[in-house]
Order: sequence, then C-alpha cells, then structure tokens
Amino acid sequence: LANFDPMHAEIISIGDELLLGQTINTNAAWMGEQLHLAGFKLKQVTTISDEREHILSALKDAESRADLVLITGGLGPTKDDITKETLCEYFETRLVLNEQVLVGITAFFTGRGLPMLDVNIKQAELPESAEILENTRGTAMGMWFNKGNKVFVSLPGVPHEMKGMMQEQVLPKIQELFHNEGSYYQMILTVGMGESFIAEKIAEWESRIRAEGLGLAYLPSPGIVKLRVSGPKGLRQKVDEECLKLEALLGDLVFGRNESSLAEAVGKLLRQQNKTLAVAESCTGGYLGHLITTIPGSSDYFKGGVISYSNQLKSEMLKVSGADLEQLGAVSEVVVKQMAVGVRMACGTDYGVATSGVAGPNGGTTEKPVGTVWIAISNASETTAFKFIFGKSRERNIAIAANYALNLLRKRIIGGE
Amino acid sequence: LANFDPMHAEIISIGDELLLGQTINTNAAWMGEQLHLAGFKLKQVTTISDEREHILSALKDAESRADLVLITGGLGPTKDDITKETLCEYFETRLVLNEQVLVGITAFFTGRGLPMLDVNIKQAELPESAEILENTRGTAMGMWFNKGNKVFVSLPGVPHEMKGMMQEQVLPKIQELFHNEGSYYQMILTVGMGESFIAEKIAEWESRIRAEGLGLAYLPSPGIVKLRVSGPKGLRQKVDEECLKLEALLGDLVFGRNESSLAEAVGKLLRQQNKTLAVAESCTGGYLGHLITTIPGSSDYFKGGVISYSNQLKSEMLKVSGADLEQLGAVSEVVVKQMAVGVRMACGTDYGVATSGVAGPNGGTTEKPVGTVWIAISNASETTAFKFIFGKSRERNIAIAANYALNLLRKRIIGGE
Repeated sequence: LANFDPMHAEIISIGDELLLGQTINTNAAWMGEQLHLAGFKLKQVTTISDEREHILSALKDAESRADLVLITGGLGPTKDDITKETLCEYFETRLVLNEQVLVGITAFFTGRGLPMLDVNIKQAELPESAEILENTRGTAMGMWFNKGNKVFVSLPGVPHEMKGMMQEQVLPKIQELFHNEGSYYQMILTVGMGESFIAEKIAEWESRIRAEGLGLAYLPSPGIVKLRVSGPKGLRQKVDEECLKLEALLGDLVFGRNESSLAEAVGKLLRQQNKTLAVAESCTGGYLGHLITTIPGSSDYFKGGVISYSNQLKSEMLKVSGADLEQLGAVSEVVVKQMAVGVRMACGTDYGVATSGVAGPNGGTTEKPVGTVWIAISNASETTAFKFIFGKSRERNIAIAANYALNLLRKRIIGGE
Repeated sequence: LANFDPMHAEIISIGDELLLGQTINTNAAWMGEQLHLAGFKLKQVTTISDEREHILSALKDAESRADLVLITGGLGPTKDDITKETLCEYFETRLVLNEQVLVGITAFFTGRGLPMLDVNIKQAELPESAEILENTRGTAMGMWFNKGNKVFVSLPGVPHEMKGMMQEQVLPKIQELFHNEGSYYQMILTVGMGESFIAEKIAEWESRIRAEGLGLAYLPSPGIVKLRVSGPKGLRQKVDEECLKLEALLGDLVFGRNESSLAEAVGKLLRQQNKTLAVAESCTGGYLGHLITTIPGSSDYFKGGVISYSNQLKSEMLKVSGADLEQLGAVSEVVVKQMAVGVRMACGTDYGVATSGVAGPNGGTTEKPVGTVWIAISNASETTAFKFIFGKSRERNIAIAANYALNLLRKRIIGGE
C-alpha cells in the first residue's frame, strides 16, 4: 500500500563468538521485533568479526540501503578497541577520554566492591563526535552518530545491557526522529498441527488478507505454530477483524492470542477457574515444571510435584503399583495414569499431569521405540491418558512432550478434550 | 601463520521470520561451529527476507568474498517459490520436475499416513543444473551449485533437516573438495567469575599464545564462561600444552574440558564415584532437574526429586518444619538445609541439592530482595548452605541459581568446597 512505506533499518552484529558459533545471535532477533513494532522494516542483519576492513565495508553497505543502522558488540572490556577505532575512522572523529563516563564506570565498580581494571578505564575513551548513551547495567557505553540524514547507533553486545539501552533511550528517540507510524500485530497461537497443514487450511484467507495489505508470518517451534498477523497502525481494526476470522477457521488448534507461551495460557485458565495443578515428571525430568514456573505469579496455581525419574520414587511418592511397574513398565498407560492420580492426591491439587516416556537416544525397544511418550491428565472426575510417538532427538522429545502435556491439560480445563 | 590460510565461507539466511525477530537464527550458529571445525573461516552471516533483488545482491556480495556460500531457508512448503526461482536466475538455469524426488516426497507422506498437498508436489520442481541433495527428514531438497571454482549450497531452514544434510552430505564433500586441514580446539569451562576478571588473570598467557598463532574466544552465559583455545590441526600438541597451562592459571574456576555443560561434568563425577542425586526445587521450579536430565543416561545417577513450590509440599514431602517455615520463611538457611536433607532421605540418595529463593519480578522484600537465593548441598556427612543475591530478571535468576547449585555440588563431590 502506498501509504505504508516504512523506514529501512539494518543491524550489524560484531563478534568472533557469533561466527565461531557458540554464541547464538539472540540480540538480532530481539532488535528485529522491536524495530518491527516501532514501524521500521529490517532489511538485513550482517554478522561479521571485529576486523577493521570488514567493519568499514559493512557500514558502507548498510548505509547504502538503510536509514537507521544499529551496531552491537565489539565493545566488551576483553575486546581490543578495534570497533571504537574503526567507528572513529568511518565517522572521521577521534577517541577522547570522557571524564563523566569515567566517573560513572568508577562508581559502577566501587558500588559492587569490585576492583577497577585498566581495560575498564579504557572504556571511558569514546568518539568525540558521538552522542554518548549511558549504560546503567555495564561499563560499555553506547554511541549515537549522525551522518547526513542517516543514524548509526553502536551498542554493547551483552543482551540485558543492550535491551535496557534500546528500550530507555534508542527506541523512543528513533521513533520520534523518523516520525514512524509503527505497526500493529496480533499473534494467534496454535498447537498440535504442522505448518503446511495450517497453510492449506487457511490458504484462501491468507491470499485475501495479503492482497488487502496485511502480512502473515508462520513461526514454528516444537509442537507449536505461531501465526503473526500484522499491518500498519492505521489498519488496526482490520487486523483485529481478520484475526477473529482466522481463529474461527482454525477452531480448537488455537490455544491463545498474544500470550507468550502455552504455559501462560494454561496459567490464565487455572487462575480464572481458581484451580490448582501438580505435575509428576518422568521423561520430561523437570522441564514441564520449568515451563509452568517461567510465568511470574505461577505459585498462585502451581503447587509443585515430583520428578519421579526412578521407579522407586514412582512407587514411594506417587503410590504407583510395584506390580504394574514390573509387569507393564514405567512407559505404559496404567502407570502414567497412576502417576497423575498419585501426584494430584499427594499435593492436594485439582489437576494432576504426568509424563512417562523414552526420551532417547538410548533405552528404546521394538515395542516402545525412542520417542514413545505417555501423558495423563487427572482431576476428581476423570483420568485420561494419551500415547504419542515423537522422534529421535532427546531434546526435542522433552520439549514436545512438555508442550503436549500443557495442551492436553488446557483442553481438559476448557472441556474440549 | 603463513601455512594457515583457511578457505572463506559465508552463510546467507533467508526468512522474514528471522528479521521479524521471533525465530532466532540458531542455524547460523550451528553451521558456524561446523565450518570452523571443518577448517573454514566464516567471514559473514547475512540474514535477509525472501525478496528477489535482495537475494541476488546477497549472492553476488558473498561470491566476491567467499569460496563457499551456504544458503538456508526460503524452501518450506508455505513459502512461495521465490528462493528457487531466484537461484535459477542467478545460476542461469530453470526449474524442472524431478521425478525421483517426487517419488520420495510421495513416499514421505504415505509413510506417515498424511495427505499429499499441491504445495508439496511443487517441492519436486528443482533447478536443472543443480546437484540435488536428498532430505530424508522432510520434503524440501538441498541444491548444490558450482560456479567457477566456488560452491553454493542451498538447504532448508528447518534445523534438524538442515543439520542432517550438513553432516551426512555437505560437510564430508566440502572438506574433500577444498582439501582443508581443519582446525583443532579445546574448550575450557569455568564457573563463578566474570569475563573481565578472567581476562585480567590470563592476560599475559593470552598475548603470548596469540603471538604464537593460536586463538582464544570468550563465550559467556549466565554464571558460566567458556574459553575456546584453537589452532590449525598441525598445532594440535601446542594447543593441548597451552590448555594445561591455562587450567593451572585458573585453578578451581575450571569445571571441565570439552563437556557440553556443567550438568555433564557433574554427571561424570557422580558416575565415577558411583553416587546418586536428588533435588528439591523451589525457586528453580524444575529447571535444575531439567539441566541434569538433558544428559543422556542421567537416570543412572539421578533419581528425581520434588518440585516443592508450595510450603505445604516442603512440609509434607520434605519434612521441613512448619514452625521454621512460618518464623523464618521459605527463603532461609534453615529451610533450604532441611529441604536438601529431606529430599536426600525421601529419595534414598547420596546427595541432596535444594534451592529456595525469590526469582521475581514480584515477591521481594527489603530483607529478601528479588534475586535472593539460598542453595543447600547435603550428604551423609555434611549439609551446607550458601546465599546469593542475583539480579532482577526472573529467567536469569532461575538459570544462574540452577548452574550455581550444580557447581556447589561439583565442589562438594571433589572435596574442594
């Protein structure tokens, strides 16, 4: 649409650790979302090592395509000063000691009772022409450069430092400067079906809303597909209307709208109905409890439970029958149901959820291959169990099992199981 | 060093979902590590959306800098065919229906009892001049293009599909083709001190090994700093010798060498000493059990435990004194010690580990602010507790608390607490 031509942004991520592959570039993803919400179109993320010539060429390329360039990394105390020196070269300025910043860095260390190191003092040397952005969480300051009508901002690579500076300083300032309308989006969350199944089911709706100027993104993760419907802020009402239509098309695959996770959606339901929950985890080993307790305030409805990794704990803490464990094995319908009932009784909660399976990579048999998982849901009126056969990856099996357990609980609570 | 001039590689990651920021580019990190181990120097990762002109310019730029270009994404069944069409344009070829691939895709769907969709049939249309790389885990095939003496490989963006194809097909082939010597590295793992403290402590050693042609990377995560010492394969012995010196410099900050995690290092110790473990988790909510059970075979030493989120479970399952809970609160030395003893007795294990704290963002008081965490370690001879005050972030507090608990257990096991 002609009236929706967003400003272009780019990100340059600097750091050997990103290219060597043991630090994942989560900063770029977070910044991408923030830029999108602030009405920018992120054109490119460029990840490079801290080499002078490569930084210079990346800056030049980004300047040719974008109105706003955000640079992260290369500023830590253990890094050599190549990033700062190179920024000085690109913006034709020089490093000078910033007394005010030095006072701040000194206070940072004395306040924490830590010794101040030479490398930290050097962090107060900053480009003369840059506007300095204060970092209240660390010792590497941010730098704001204007060049023509383009803006470059250099930020530290430590995620919580970068995020604080973006939220408090950079985002408000760039939105004002670029007069951005901003985007509006809604996130429809689904569980239990793959991306291509969903795409087929909503193909006609998708073509139509795209033609009408809205956007749709599929965001799949183990067991879950998030659908992001977006448009310019002026089409806010249109986005809301189309989301209702989408939810109707997808029926009970949808578990929430704009929640951060299935655990949050389940938590809301439990809170609304004033019900409590306990878990008995075998193959998920604590991950289900972890997902539930990532939600602030979850102690209102989550009482805890048992990580019954050994059969002994299944018997002693959850009152699972020793004979059933021996004859049917821990990965069985009978045992997983007894676990769910047992943890509900032991913890005195309304709901009990249990998992038992072969997460892998070892421990599989012909009858119960790796990936076999039983999940049970119990309340006072009913205890039901479900069998799944997931894949070969231990990590993925644990993640999917925990999410499917949350989904089965959700369906039980809303009565649609 | 003149004899260590690695081939240059680049990665082009295609996908709106990466730029919109809700999919994190984990593929690039994994590929970066694999390329490094295969002896390539990864020069740049470029993340772009699936727009024809931008894909064309990214290909051209990468070709100008690198010998090998790996492209991921843009091939899923819900994507339009822009990536494949654009590759055809760049490599001057055309899409043709590949009958053999169509047979494979059909078998993929019938084998899973799933309907075959029109979009899936189109996945068998592939560039005529490309060598096709089979995808046994999905329906988007890989494509290998030669252009002059440069190689371009396009792979699907689904992580486990891409990884399988890289390991089974791409990596063996590129290592042979480029006659790469490859790199050698060792990973020294530390816990309990920050990056700048470590850098100061090893500054002289670091300068010397860098001058001698080795590399060092700092890889920090909550509570943990990994140090990666690397060099060309010909300097393997030198790398090993320097790692011994580094470990001596760092003393008991080092918890392992080349383990994937602290949980793996602790698991090895427990296995060696034939000891067993149980956990009582309050503020960590299952995350400690999860870290322990990410390790395959952990059921040999980990018996399970109790997620005692509510005070009621602390009393009933762990025999914590109700009077102490009431007078001292759950976040106290006395209670966390009782939890550790209680779970050790209840589960009949050699070691019991307990956590109790204020994860946040709410629930803090002046006396016990958000971030206050007590951790206790118990065995038959001794029960000790430690108090920490972490930060404001719930997610980070949970992660650091679980890692510190593992580290305190490690120190107890090796007798160096």
